Amino acid sequence: MGKKVKVIGIGPGTYEMMTMQAAEALKDSTVIAGYNVYVDLVKDHFPGKRFLTTPMRKEEERCRLALEEAAKGEEVAFICSGDAGVYGMAGLLYEMAKDFEGVEIEVIPGITAAVSGAAVLGAPLIHDFAVISLSDLMTPWETILKRVRCAAEGDFGIVLYNPSSHKRHDYLQKACDVLLEVLSPDTVTGTVCNIGREGEEMHIYTLAELRDTPVDMFTTVFIGKSTTRVVNGKMVTPRGYAIERKED
Amino acid sequence: MGKKVKVIGIGPGTYEMMTMQAAEALKDSTVIAGYNVYVDLVKDHFPGKRFLTTPMRKEEERCRLALEEAAKGEEVAFICSGDAGVYGMAGLLYEMAKDFEGVEIEVIPGITAAVSGAAVLGAPLIHDFAVISLSDLMTPWETILKRVRCAAEGDFGIVLYNPSSHKRHDYLQKACDVLLEVLSPDTVTGTVCNIGREGEEMHIYTLAELRDTPVDMFTTVFIGKSTTRVVNGKMVTPRGYAIERKED
Repeated sequence: MGKKVKVIGIGPGTYEMMTMQAAEALKDSTVIAGYNVYVDLVKDHFPGKRFLTTPMRKEEERCRLALEEAAKGEEVAFICSGDAGVYGMAGLLYEMAKDFEGVEIEVIPGITAAVSGAAVLGAPLIHDFAVISLSDLMTPWETILKRVRCAAEGDFGIVLYNPSSHKRHDYLQKACDVLLEVLSPDTVTGTVCNIGREGEEMHIYTLAELRDTPVDMFTTVFIGKSTTRVVNGKMVTPRGYAIERKED
Repeated sequence: MGKKVKVIGIGPGTYEMMTMQAAEALKDSTVIAGYNVYVDLVKDHFPGKRFLTTPMRKEEERCRLALEEAAKGEEVAFICSGDAGVYGMAGLLYEMAKDFEGVEIEVIPGITAAVSGAAVLGAPLIHDFAVISLSDLMTPWETILKRVRCAAEGDFGIVLYNPSSHKRHDYLQKACDVLLEVLSPDTVTGTVCNIGREGEEMHIYTLAELRDTPVDMFTTVFIGKSTTRVVNGKMVTPRGYAIERKED
């Protein structure tokens, strides 16, 4: 057995939404590392482990601690919310592992918010879609808006992560303004907050309504395609079968 | 308990890559419906169930059978590979459920190939990405190529589903030609076939090499962003931390 950090996507938060492979890897570990909020979500299911947590914004420190423990021979499970490869720490761990000879990285996938949030709203994605984070901490805001525009021009289903924060309370509004230059104001949109956790809530809006709706940082936003409809209170994008049959 | 069809994403195929929530829903069901290939993947883990399968291209029939069973009071689990809301049957079931009064749809999310394939390749997505199917069975080919172009112009990580079939052996090549109009021929790309199943294989290519590489229908293709690199044989997109620190 070589030295290894297993980077594990735990999904939206509840234990049951983790894969069996992820739960097994956590059980097999001796050390569980991660952002303290995520570690708290799973802690009770894995007694007897050593927990290694750092607060938000301490990502490099967190990765380094995990790699050091693996280098010492510990079985390290590094947890991320959602999937470790979608706005998660898998990339940074691969890069930093270059300085820790003999330590390998293994990614164990998890359910990202695009997929878990879609399940709550109905079936908003179904076909081609784009995932964009509105956080400009590490991406220039112009790049973000360009991506929003490209996704709208391609008639992708669009999922917006990090639509708000303390400092960025009007970013969703600005993104909607770009979307409204391309898409109909009646485009079906939806929001889900606290996916898979206590207080889970979904709402469906037109794009014009969404523009003037405040959302918090625990919300994921879905912009429908031109074909997306509201069906029995759910946001549904047809794959085309029903339409096709009618045209036969 | 109302009448319900639970639409369940089983992930890439192995039992362990299913969420515990999905396995629980399958255990609680009386009838398991789905495409015969996917049902065969999970069958042995759920003895004593009634299995209701139809072959490929019989999606509407499959959904109707499942809805009819639920209307009769059966606990129906309808399985899709990957996630039921990403190129899956969740949308069609919502639409068809309108004709089955009192039958509800619940989507239980699963690991889609964008996420499971990324975990095999390393960390190719990490940041904003777009998912596009190259199947033109239900989408005009021009629309597909337009989306490929929009995704390239937005510098998204790109995941291509259904890159090939018996009739569409040159579609990936055509998509690469569009990508090459926008992206560098040295762009890092990767392929994964048989994700999470026997015969799983990953390869990394430049975009120019990928253009001339034949792939089969069990392959998922990943196109990197401008920042994507090969790190220790893995395809890795940096999130920006390492770069940022160097500029401090």
